[in-house]
Amino acid sequence: MSKTRVHIFDTTLRDGEQSPGASLNVEEKLEIARQLEKLGVDVIEAGFPISSPGDFEAVRRISALVGDVTVCGLTRAREKDIDVAWDALRGAKRPRIHTGLGVSKSHLQHKLKMTEDQALEVGVNAVRHARKLGCEDIEYFTEDSGRAEPEYLYRVLEAVIKAGATVLNIPDTTGYLTPEEYGALFRGILEHVPGSENVTLSCHCHNDLGMATANALAAVRNGARQIECTVNGIGERAGNTSLEEVTMALVTRRDSFGLDVGLHTEEIYNTSRMVSQMTGILVQPNKAIVGANAFAHSSGIHQDGVLKERTTYEIIDPKSIGIMESKIILSARSGRHGVRHRLEELGITFGPADEFEKIYERFLKVADSKKVVYDEDLKAIVSDSITTVPQTYELERVQVACGDNAIPTATVELRHDGKVMRDADTGNGPVDAVYRAINRIVRVPNDLIEFTVQSVTEGIDAMADVTIRLRSDSNIYTGRSAHTDIVVASAKAYVQALNKQLDRTSGRPVPMLDHV
Amino acid sequence: MSKTRVHIFDTTLRDGEQSPGASLNVEEKLEIARQLEKLGVDVIEAGFPISSPGDFEAVRRISALVGDVTVCGLTRAREKDIDVAWDALRGAKRPRIHTGLGVSKSHLQHKLKMTEDQALEVGVNAVRHARKLGCEDIEYFTEDSGRAEPEYLYRVLEAVIKAGATVLNIPDTTGYLTPEEYGALFRGILEHVPGSENVTLSCHCHNDLGMATANALAAVRNGARQIECTVNGIGERAGNTSLEEVTMALVTRRDSFGLDVGLHTEEIYNTSRMVSQMTGILVQPNKAIVGANAFAHSSGIHQDGVLKERTTYEIIDPKSIGIMESKIILSARSGRHGVRHRLEELGITFGPADEFEKIYERFLKVADSKKVVYDEDLKAIVSDSITTVPQTYELERVQVACGDNAIPTATVELRHDGKVMRDADTGNGPVDAVYRAINRIVRVPNDLIEFTVQSVTEGIDAMADVTIRLRSDSNIYTGRSAHTDIVVASAKAYVQALNKQLDRTSGRPVPMLDHV
Repeated sequence: MSKTRVHIFDTTLRDGEQSPGASLNVEEKLEIARQLEKLGVDVIEAGFPISSPGDFEAVRRISALVGDVTVCGLTRAREKDIDVAWDALRGAKRPRIHTGLGVSKSHLQHKLKMTEDQALEVGVNAVRHARKLGCEDIEYFTEDSGRAEPEYLYRVLEAVIKAGATVLNIPDTTGYLTPEEYGALFRGILEHVPGSENVTLSCHCHNDLGMATANALAAVRNGARQIECTVNGIGERAGNTSLEEVTMALVTRRDSFGLDVGLHTEEIYNTSRMVSQMTGILVQPNKAIVGANAFAHSSGIHQDGVLKERTTYEIIDPKSIGIMESKIILSARSGRHGVRHRLEELGITFGPADEFEKIYERFLKVADSKKVVYDEDLKAIVSDSITTVPQTYELERVQVACGDNAIPTATVELRHDGKVMRDADTGNGPVDAVYRAINRIVRVPNDLIEFTVQSVTEGIDAMADVTIRLRSDSNIYTGRSAHTDIVVASAKAYVQALNKQLDRTSGRPVPMLDHV
Repeated sequence: MSKTRVHIFDTTLRDGEQSPGASLNVEEKLEIARQLEKLGVDVIEAGFPISSPGDFEAVRRISALVGDVTVCGLTRAREKDIDVAWDALRGAKRPRIHTGLGVSKSHLQHKLKMTEDQALEVGVNAVRHARKLGCEDIEYFTEDSGRAEPEYLYRVLEAVIKAGATVLNIPDTTGYLTPEEYGALFRGILEHVPGSENVTLSCHCHNDLGMATANALAAVRNGARQIECTVNGIGERAGNTSLEEVTMALVTRRDSFGLDVGLHTEEIYNTSRMVSQMTGILVQPNKAIVGANAFAHSSGIHQDGVLKERTTYEIIDPKSIGIMESKIILSARSGRHGVRHRLEELGITFGPADEFEKIYERFLKVADSKKVVYDEDLKAIVSDSITTVPQTYELERVQVACGDNAIPTATVELRHDGKVMRDADTGNGPVDAVYRAINRIVRVPNDLIEFTVQSVTEGIDAMADVTIRLRSDSNIYTGRSAHTDIVVASAKAYVQALNKQLDRTSGRPVPMLDHV
């Protein structure tokens, strides 16, 4: 491996999916994996196979789907975990098992309840077991490395390299370290661990103090050649290193880092949008690289400066991450051919012909009420049409009357098992009334914990993109739908989340799992 | 000044307000300034007095309002700017003028069209002029310092120190530098600029590559003792260093930095919410420190780890930034006394008695339809009641009928000049229909460019918090309203934005202004 090439290890589908409420079903994970391959990431961490049947299935199908990309599955340092992961990964052209164990005093004492030597032996055995199964690419993580005794960390790393590990992941699990400290950790490893020069060192940062990007880059300056990251920086708590930030920092400041990444950066914006839509996790306007304002110049002088000389204020060309200025517009007269052609140009893939028919049908309805259909509308239509949860209930009809001196009242019709059921209820607003009317039919207990709406495009007649999250027991279910009528979109999003709740396997992994 | 004390310079009201659509009116700025004083920031940059009458007024009134906090006003390096700023600032107990000029080749050539010597002279004269007016605290910014020739930068700094500058602001205007480079810039200044040891060095970072927090901390490690930052990291493009991130990094890692900040960190969360609500700029769930998920533990193992030993995964106690677990609940029976008492406990201040009556009236309506009123509801009610734009139009009534087989139809009544005007229209959704009906009455051209809704609290009957942004010419107007009925909230938010549009002075500053 070239010494100047940095590998991008995307863990959106594993660590990113651990964001509260971000859970994705298998079809959604496949969509994202397809896009990540197009983006050109080096490794896709596709899931944690033993954690749930859904995770296993996602890893198995992504392994079969992608070509030259390495597909990685997470495991605890246990034989059973590794067996299951290998089962899921064996269809991949480049499979990788990711295993490991905590190394800090706090983890050894409070979580693992093992001595240093016991934990080391468990780790080494895990690597050996993966080797024995025939896995040739094994990544080893040392959880909470930042708070470990360096001597012990070095001892563990030396032992797992000898056992056959090819990549060493040194995570800053709690997002506690500063760039200086995290960089020094890698320098120390390269100095003190025999054999470390022959394996790939990998950084895995969390953003609790807002330094995940800088920490990853500090690691890279000190010898790391793989960066673990997620699209939009999603993940537990404050998330992980953001893929788009580290990538564009390395590209924009190649003069300073002198390192190469293999990404097709012009796919960054599309990937960001897809992940935001599918997980329902919004990107704030002032998010670096992919936020709505990242390239906006609002103050007078800046506009003036940009006109005079682009480089005065703009260090990245928006086109380089795939933000295009021209918006192709479709209308009801565009026809099947026009829509299909534009979908192809946008790089939106879909399955069998009947899927296109579903998309086209929805397109016609939107074109009818909205007159012009922008690219963003088209993307919303597609993501609304192809989300594949079993449709236990289908929304047939909804109507609402409301106002500030009225009693908001909703009527809904749902189709279930071939029968249409109708009910009505009142609420303190139109959305509340719709939800109550639906609840009278579906009757499953849950709490609505989040409700957000964004307009898909500019304009007074724009489609509303509604995300809702339900909680039932400790599981969170997300529903998302776009429609020109906010009440209809809310009803559809709610029914979608209810269907996910009824189809439990798409929920969060079971508790008690190891984690990097 | 103590060598271990880092000053927090908050520029939410100046650089933060340059975020597209974030413009705040004077009353809103006063509210935020009051909260910043409570938070304990050292400096409030209150505005750019010459840029608009609104900015002048905000700086003047904030100067009169706050006590021991330094109030800073931005100027170009021009006598007229400095005269106007001094006029606005003279009521402050600790006034500071912030002036300066570009120092990079690109700025000198393309923007300023001056030679190095000419620009230096303009800068020195600006500082002398501020001194002559009686200003004793003068901050000098060197725009685009990161791309300047070091020799020239040193020469400028030495000259302005001699002329009387007390603080040197070395901005990374384009967010281009890495922490190593930015730290080296400060080290170089301390080494090469005579007198630099007797003034305060200040860092001002932009987040274009996601490193604004790490860059500010690198500056501090290399001698900077003032950090310029904004609440939630808002600002142009990808924004500025985020106040909450640098502060909590310095506090949490005091062992590494060995520096003190004077903030009451338990006011961080309240400040973040206030700024997000007033600017309409959402905070993403995975935002460090203040995001909704920043302290959430979703994966099973983390929950388990936290239970076993809190410090396994949590490096910051949520209480330390003011996130409290117990939510006090009010109801319609709470009475004036209960509501007022809770507002006081929450530290929410409001003006004269009739303002409380307005809040209480709205509280009763919400309590009536929602039964329980949480702290978050109360905050939304307050921020809805005290936003003070001249009410050219007032929403008297709105009613809507819609559904997926219906033609969405809205009826509105607006009060204007004592008369009630009524009209109706249809649309492709209930919100569209309401906007069209309002437009038939108000008749001012604009484009709706953004529409977002968030639920204020959990629960199916939660209030909807609607933010809309209009564009008219190149100005952007934000309206925000919370109501249990999403259609009513949308109508109120739209009328608020229209009133702002009609009251032009609250718009963006005029073009052609210098900027850090």
